[in-house]
Amino acid sequence: MIIAVKRGASGDEVRELSADLEKQGVKVHLSEGDIQTVLGLVGDTTAIDAEALQAHHLVEKVIRVQEPYKRANRLFHPEDTRIDIPLQGGGTRSIGAGRLGIMAGPCSVETRGQITEVAEAVKKAGAGVLRGGAFKPRTSPYSFQGLGCEGLDLLVEAKKATGLPIISELMTINQLEIFDQVDIIQIGARNMQNFNLLKELGRCRKPVLLKRGYACTVTELLMAAEYIMAGGNDRVILCERGIRTFDTYTRNTLDLSSIPFLKRKSHLPVIADPSHGTGLAWMVPAMTKAAIAAGADGVIVEVHNNPEKALCDGEQSITPAVFAELMDTLKKYAAIEGKEL
Amino acid sequence: MIIAVKRGASGDEVRELSADLEKQGVKVHLSEGDIQTVLGLVGDTTAIDAEALQAHHLVEKVIRVQEPYKRANRLFHPEDTRIDIPLQGGGTRSIGAGRLGIMAGPCSVETRGQITEVAEAVKKAGAGVLRGGAFKPRTSPYSFQGLGCEGLDLLVEAKKATGLPIISELMTINQLEIFDQVDIIQIGARNMQNFNLLKELGRCRKPVLLKRGYACTVTELLMAAEYIMAGGNDRVILCERGIRTFDTYTRNTLDLSSIPFLKRKSHLPVIADPSHGTGLAWMVPAMTKAAIAAGADGVIVEVHNNPEKALCDGEQSITPAVFAELMDTLKKYAAIEGKEL
Amino acid sequence: MIIAVKRGASGDEVRELSADLEKQGVKVHLSEGDIQTVLGLVGDTTAIDAEALQAHHLVEKVIRVQEPYKRANRLFHPEDTRIDIPLQGGGTRSIGAGRLGIMAGPCSVETRGQITEVAEAVKKAGAGVLRGGAFKPRTSPYSFQGLGCEGLDLLVEAKKATGLPIISELMTINQLEIFDQVDIIQIGARNMQNFNLLKELGRCRKPVLLKRGYACTVTELLMAAEYIMAGGNDRVILCERGIRTFDTYTRNTLDLSSIPFLKRKSHLPVIADPSHGTGLAWMVPAMTKAAIAAGADGVIVEVHNNPEKALCDGEQSITPAVFAELMDTLKKYAAIEGKEL
Amino acid sequence: MIIAVKRGASGDEVRELSADLEKQGVKVHLSEGDIQTVLGLVGDTTAIDAEALQAHHLVEKVIRVQEPYKRANRLFHPEDTRIDIPLQGGGTRSIGAGRLGIMAGPCSVETRGQITEVAEAVKKAGAGVLRGGAFKPRTSPYSFQGLGCEGLDLLVEAKKATGLPIISELMTINQLEIFDQVDIIQIGARNMQNFNLLKELGRCRKPVLLKRGYACTVTELLMAAEYIMAGGNDRVILCERGIRTFDTYTRNTLDLSSIPFLKRKSHLPVIADPSHGTGLAWMVPAMTKAAIAAGADGVIVEVHNNPEKALCDGEQSITPAVFAELMDTLKKYAAIEGKEL
Repeated sequence: MIIAVKRGASGDEVRELSADLEKQGVKVHLSEGDIQTVLGLVGDTTAIDAEALQAHHLVEKVIRVQEPYKRANRLFHPEDTRIDIPLQGGGTRSIGAGRLGIMAGPCSVETRGQITEVAEAVKKAGAGVLRGGAFKPRTSPYSFQGLGCEGLDLLVEAKKATGLPIISELMTINQLEIFDQVDIIQIGARNMQNFNLLKELGRCRKPVLLKRGYACTVTELLMAAEYIMAGGNDRVILCERGIRTFDTYTRNTLDLSSIPFLKRKSHLPVIADPSHGTGLAWMVPAMTKAAIAAGADGVIVEVHNNPEKALCDGEQSITPAVFAELMDTLKKYAAIEGKEL
Repeated sequence: MIIAVKRGASGDEVRELSADLEKQGVKVHLSEGDIQTVLGLVGDTTAIDAEALQAHHLVEKVIRVQEPYKRANRLFHPEDTRIDIPLQGGGTRSIGAGRLGIMAGPCSVETRGQITEVAEAVKKAGAGVLRGGAFKPRTSPYSFQGLGCEGLDLLVEAKKATGLPIISELMTINQLEIFDQVDIIQIGARNMQNFNLLKELGRCRKPVLLKRGYACTVTELLMAAEYIMAGGNDRVILCERGIRTFDTYTRNTLDLSSIPFLKRKSHLPVIADPSHGTGLAWMVPAMTKAAIAAGADGVIVEVHNNPEKALCDGEQSITPAVFAELMDTLKKYAAIEGKEL
Repeated sequence: MIIAVKRGASGDEVRELSADLEKQGVKVHLSEGDIQTVLGLVGDTTAIDAEALQAHHLVEKVIRVQEPYKRANRLFHPEDTRIDIPLQGGGTRSIGAGRLGIMAGPCSVETRGQITEVAEAVKKAGAGVLRGGAFKPRTSPYSFQGLGCEGLDLLVEAKKATGLPIISELMTINQLEIFDQVDIIQIGARNMQNFNLLKELGRCRKPVLLKRGYACTVTELLMAAEYIMAGGNDRVILCERGIRTFDTYTRNTLDLSSIPFLKRKSHLPVIADPSHGTGLAWMVPAMTKAAIAAGADGVIVEVHNNPEKALCDGEQSITPAVFAELMDTLKKYAAIEGKEL
Repeated sequence: MIIAVKRGASGDEVRELSADLEKQGVKVHLSEGDIQTVLGLVGDTTAIDAEALQAHHLVEKVIRVQEPYKRANRLFHPEDTRIDIPLQGGGTRSIGAGRLGIMAGPCSVETRGQITEVAEAVKKAGAGVLRGGAFKPRTSPYSFQGLGCEGLDLLVEAKKATGLPIISELMTINQLEIFDQVDIIQIGARNMQNFNLLKELGRCRKPVLLKRGYACTVTELLMAAEYIMAGGNDRVILCERGIRTFDTYTRNTLDLSSIPFLKRKSHLPVIADPSHGTGLAWMVPAMTKAAIAAGADGVIVEVHNNPEKALCDGEQSITPAVFAELMDTLKKYAAIEGKEL
């Protein structure tokens, strides 16, 4: 961290500021120039509050050279992290470090027939993980809120029937214990900065799929992962799912540049959600391919056996037939990129 | 709600769609034109999921004429809502319906000396409510997270000493019981769409200050209020605190147009937070005046006795002296606008 | 400007970089620390291209301490600039430095009757300048594009009849000569970064009202003013007219914080356009008051004698009656703020 | 277009409104329901000003069912448009309808040596068009503004030497005649809504590469193309080059979803600019592949023989070596997508 000191600051003032900073556990190196005095902070600056410093009357500008995250930082962990998910019948399914994770299934679990039918279809097409929502964050209190525990039970049944590991969204700390059979805990965009929840996830030992908040920067996403990792849980998968911008022709603006960026800055696997990212079923295949081309470690895609009758997000769900065709193309993309599907 | 039917739909198909819709509790009025068939939905359409409908193969466009919220809607509750807060020594402090609520105090409670000194200063200057954070949502897990329960105790002490009602931010459902002595529960921008928390707030009987999420539309803010009100708690105060935009010269972009808009659409009181809205202490007085001129029912302002040493958000805190001067000007503004300060 | 040098750079490399920079007319001060080498650039750094520097393999970060504009910068011109507009019958109308400029009139000049009627009404209510569009930038090639030269003639007639100075939008360099009788040249948001046009405006001697582009930062607005001023024309009025954000309940998001910010950074007058800034006539009075409360040196407001029949932007035009009432309130606001209306 | 009439409107009022609308060249079909009266407008509604209508006191909502553009609309021109560029030695280079157009070269033409060297390198690697800027839109009046006519001459020399067709940015109407030897006229993001310029381009007979404004919607981009096409020039290539959002880790946010969207709505070729879209050279290969995977008809990429010494945009320029490697991968992508490179 570099601090440009305001002109006119006296030597005594600058020394006092340096001493204050050193109390926070860093070493301060002073460069007194004729026209600009600069403080260079060495050591672990993640705990230094740059915003607070900016309020100091001697400080002109604070410049972070180092990233504010440590455990998520590739600098301190150069190899790609691979998340291994144990399979029912033995063996593991891996995501990251060259293995693509394809997660597919309906937005909401609706009935036993629906989840079973979709689960079998996506398994046959080659999906690695079954997704299905039981607790749904809905903008309106009057909309369908998911089947809740019953939905979770049906999802677990589909897991047992197909052998696919499952992922489902957890909305509040109290639900943690009933997610016992869920293989990957999904944290939705609106909870990305629910810091109390993140701290709890740090204490659990399940992989967490952390979706980028729709108005959060990539650095904030990495800081949210850092919250979980600081608690002791290193198994975090990052997910780009679109951000809010001025244009509304898509439900969100899928920011695919975040994929190469996150992978350069962090060792964690990064996947994309082209269903929420676009909100348009017909656009999902194109954007899934683009995500893999950009370097994603996988995708999470909404597949529904009857999108028109879906209780939630039908407009963005593709059919099992479209999904199967997409998987065929993805195999070719994976081959070019040197990844295992 | 109006549904434009796709051209080419047969009469039978349209009748089937109408029947499906009527099962959801509305009456459907069919206007078959030569070139455009339109369905008009009458009754309570708040439970109709417009997004789901949009996925239907017969539907060209869905147009909401009615707002998706009911209890927060001024249409069904034309008079301004006034929130009354009982005072320690008897009497009440009111916000809304012509009464301005001025809430002031430090971002974080830091020490007994700090909160007491600020509390007395803002009381003397004319503030109606004392603010102070005990639990702080921080982007970094390594930043100061607030004093927690101890901070809350110090805030309650300051309430007892000054007689000012207090407001503090609640971050998670589990904290509800320890907020017993807190007069107004503040819900931060990042929790505006924490739906499980909103449902719990619907069950409690305290006034809730609901801050607009930094990437949430005004309609989403009203829907979040609707969640609380649908649970039975009508005492919601809305708060504009700035949104995220492409420009970063201010910490957020304070969207003052939301004030006249929210007041036209809803009967709930609306206040502004110029401290978070700008992040710049020197700009707070100008934007506080602008908020009142735009029709706000009050403001929540960060005041700190020593902003440079503040553990949190010092850059945006004004001193007690600046606050006192601002209050003098606000009295003149209140007089022009015909409001009680 | 401060340059943080990458670790590992050799002394020779750093000296070579310094020498390159000194060729660009600045003095470079080198602070070699144990852990961070920093170059401080002194002198006029406005010509140094920070983005180009960032591409250099020795450069970690480039930090501008000084603003990239000079002539528009309050640092070098501490007093407020006042723009004087000569009046037909002698005398002047001033904007800035304590004088509020209220510009009012229709979006488009439509007929002699319309512009005359509106001109007389706004003059009576106290407006200082008459606005009226002759050349209209329209999103669709099939929309009404303004009356062109005929419209300009009608506007000049209204000027002669009422004595009010006039402002009208210029869209392209070729129109400059026909704007002879126009007192203030308005540059629309879409032309704020039409650099060839800005250079031409630098050569003319008329006051220019420069509207902020709807996706331009405040710094870019000041750089656009700098283009005009660098050419020799110092008579620039800045105008906040709303920016594009994710929320669309207003046509644009009127960013009133830009007013105190621009006035702190620059000596130029700053006004607001609440008509385009909101797009909603009923919201114009509230936001006009808020702009003045925030410190604006005036406003430009659309007034139409029959908004429903307006050929352009009727939805955001207020009637002469509403305008007259608003002017009465503004007088009180001006008095509190110590400004002349 | 559908107009929802406000409740309470009398039959006479509605008939008068209908008659007014029919004068604008459409047929109005009236559907009077018990609870909602709806007007359906048939015929060419592109000339109806939806915003103006919204100001009418009888109008509740205006809903466009049809797109506001005609010539750019795939509905009226189902086949892909192919742009053919005649080559120096005979033959043509095509873009669109299955042919990928790869345009490469430096941001700015700097010296004869530089442009020649880059031109030969990109030709060898397989580029189809040489790019090079002579007139540069720069945010600061003090930055390098391009070599102007001299730069254009050097670019034409490189065209003659290599046989590659050339593309260069035109900034103002007056430059049109000196672009005689330029094969494709590039219109930059800041000029996308320079309507006078667009009208002039409609009169010329050269292909135009139209870049999306950084805060323009995809519909506005199509309307800008419509301006050119309405003037008689159908040879427009659309270009996604990134939009402004709240996150700044990339220079712009490359909105790749616009590619499938534009191609579905329009018959015009669509390419991407990953250099400006990201601003980071190391990210260009990943995003180029992603653009092709998303369905783009080509890319425009900045290639510089010495990015560190580039006078403009060095940070986002890749070297000829990186470009050559990228071309090899693109060949595989083109094969999967069934396109000719």
